[in-house]
Amino acid sequence: MSVVYNKVALIGLGLIASSMFWAMQRGGVAGTVSGYARSQASRDTARRIGLCDEVCESPQEAVQDADLIVLATPVGAMGAVMQAIAPHLKPGTTVIDVGSVKQTVISEVAPHIPDGVHFVPCHPMAGTEHSGPEAGFATLFDNRWCLIVPNKGTSEEPVQRQVTYWQALGAMTEIMEADHHDMVCAVVSHIPHLIAYTMVGVADDLRRVSDQEVIKFSAAGFRDFTRIAASDPTMWRDVFLTNKDATIEILGRFTEELMALQRAIRTGDGEQLHAYFTRTRAIRRSILEAGQDTDKPDFGRAEVK
Amino acid sequence: MSVVYNKVALIGLGLIASSMFWAMQRGGVAGTVSGYARSQASRDTARRIGLCDEVCESPQEAVQDADLIVLATPVGAMGAVMQAIAPHLKPGTTVIDVGSVKQTVISEVAPHIPDGVHFVPCHPMAGTEHSGPEAGFATLFDNRWCLIVPNKGTSEEPVQRQVTYWQALGAMTEIMEADHHDMVCAVVSHIPHLIAYTMVGVADDLRRVSDQEVIKFSAAGFRDFTRIAASDPTMWRDVFLTNKDATIEILGRFTEELMALQRAIRTGDGEQLHAYFTRTRAIRRSILEAGQDTDKPDFGRAEVK
Repeated sequence: MSVVYNKVALIGLGLIASSMFWAMQRGGVAGTVSGYARSQASRDTARRIGLCDEVCESPQEAVQDADLIVLATPVGAMGAVMQAIAPHLKPGTTVIDVGSVKQTVISEVAPHIPDGVHFVPCHPMAGTEHSGPEAGFATLFDNRWCLIVPNKGTSEEPVQRQVTYWQALGAMTEIMEADHHDMVCAVVSHIPHLIAYTMVGVADDLRRVSDQEVIKFSAAGFRDFTRIAASDPTMWRDVFLTNKDATIEILGRFTEELMALQRAIRTGDGEQLHAYFTRTRAIRRSILEAGQDTDKPDFGRAEVK
Repeated sequence: MSVVYNKVALIGLGLIASSMFWAMQRGGVAGTVSGYARSQASRDTARRIGLCDEVCESPQEAVQDADLIVLATPVGAMGAVMQAIAPHLKPGTTVIDVGSVKQTVISEVAPHIPDGVHFVPCHPMAGTEHSGPEAGFATLFDNRWCLIVPNKGTSEEPVQRQVTYWQALGAMTEIMEADHHDMVCAVVSHIPHLIAYTMVGVADDLRRVSDQEVIKFSAAGFRDFTRIAASDPTMWRDVFLTNKDATIEILGRFTEELMALQRAIRTGDGEQLHAYFTRTRAIRRSILEAGQDTDKPDFGRAEVK
């Protein structure tokens, strides 16, 4: 492996940034890595576990002389962070963000990018239900996708270097337009999360079935929803507030289909239900064939006690 | 381990029945096991893989001299099967079913139970996304719940023997009333399945995002839904047609909550979203503490290529 950027600055030290650090270490991808987190507790934790070569007390200090700056804060904070660090960037440097939505981030970050600095929005599609500086691990991006959404007018070289960078972290890369990105993510990620949150909320709120029963008997299906419904609340609040249009569009489609199935149940239309449930099996098969999941029973949870 | 029933007859040879056979073998729980499946193909498969000591050509033949008869067909077929085998049961024998709903099964099966035969409805809450006689494995019930829903007027001894039997197969048992059972299962299992089917159906049906993209990027959350949306269509059709009231009630609550969240997104109410998403984390934690899931990142899928 060889160094892709001489100095990398991580702004925000959550699951994604901390995993990037360990993956950079594993691959020898960066000369040195500086880091900054807004909370003192996170900075202390980072120092204690050896996250980053240097943990700084301000974002301005962290970005000093950096060749790559990674905005890894919640999406809602990125515009303000960019504004704060803008005067401290060296010419020719590259700024990326790792947010889950792209149109809003671009409209909030791009205006603050100084002349001669490259902005390459990125979205590493990897995560777990854990968050914070201790949640990261070097293999998080292995065989996962990183979508790269070049800002209009960005030259070719910094984009190509981002491809090299993410591949060195273990990821596969794909270039995509911002509006299409936001729609794809609404379908494969944002709406599934919203639905999972809702289902868990309903179960928690029922009087006729106790929380204890829900927990005890969760392996019957409910459990699969709880992993994604345990994701970071701040991150997800920002996702929905910033990808509003695509979210509302797909949610409309979802509600429509759910109402059609509810009607089939109410009227006893077994044929419609059977046809619907058969169609969805094919998608599962394709996901297994594409190597995006394991077909072990229960995702290999079998050993769970 | 010791024999709990001298002869057991399995009617239907899908995931649950085949797992019961292997678990009975592992624990030495039955003297002999006979089996019957409606399709010739399933009977041939069962013979080829050594499923059951004897595979019969009719349910009447299979139940001959059996001390325990297990109805393991789709729920919708159980009444007719019970009617067909009723004249062939020996006095004092026990009939159980392993269906996912209980009130409808009881109302359809109980009228055909002959005098002197015990009926103990059961619901082993275990499953995978695979179905058919080759899907079974001995450890399916280990540390999983089996809900036992004694029919009115059933004497104590056959119920207690079912407790012993399921524990010998590896399961934990709990006694529950039929109507409460159906409500609990609507929450922890039936509605999650319906929602997962709907989400996968929506994704499959969109023009603006291709199936290939959905499959490629499924690890971002969508994938967690596809496992349960790949479950057996016939079984699930019957579940919804036979647990209609509880399904429609919980679905109503779900839609109400989803609309409230949609409104919060539309009006930009970040506080409400954040509060909602925070509440659901606690449930996830309780499920991990109760040993009903693994907290490994990605359910331990990390090694998936």
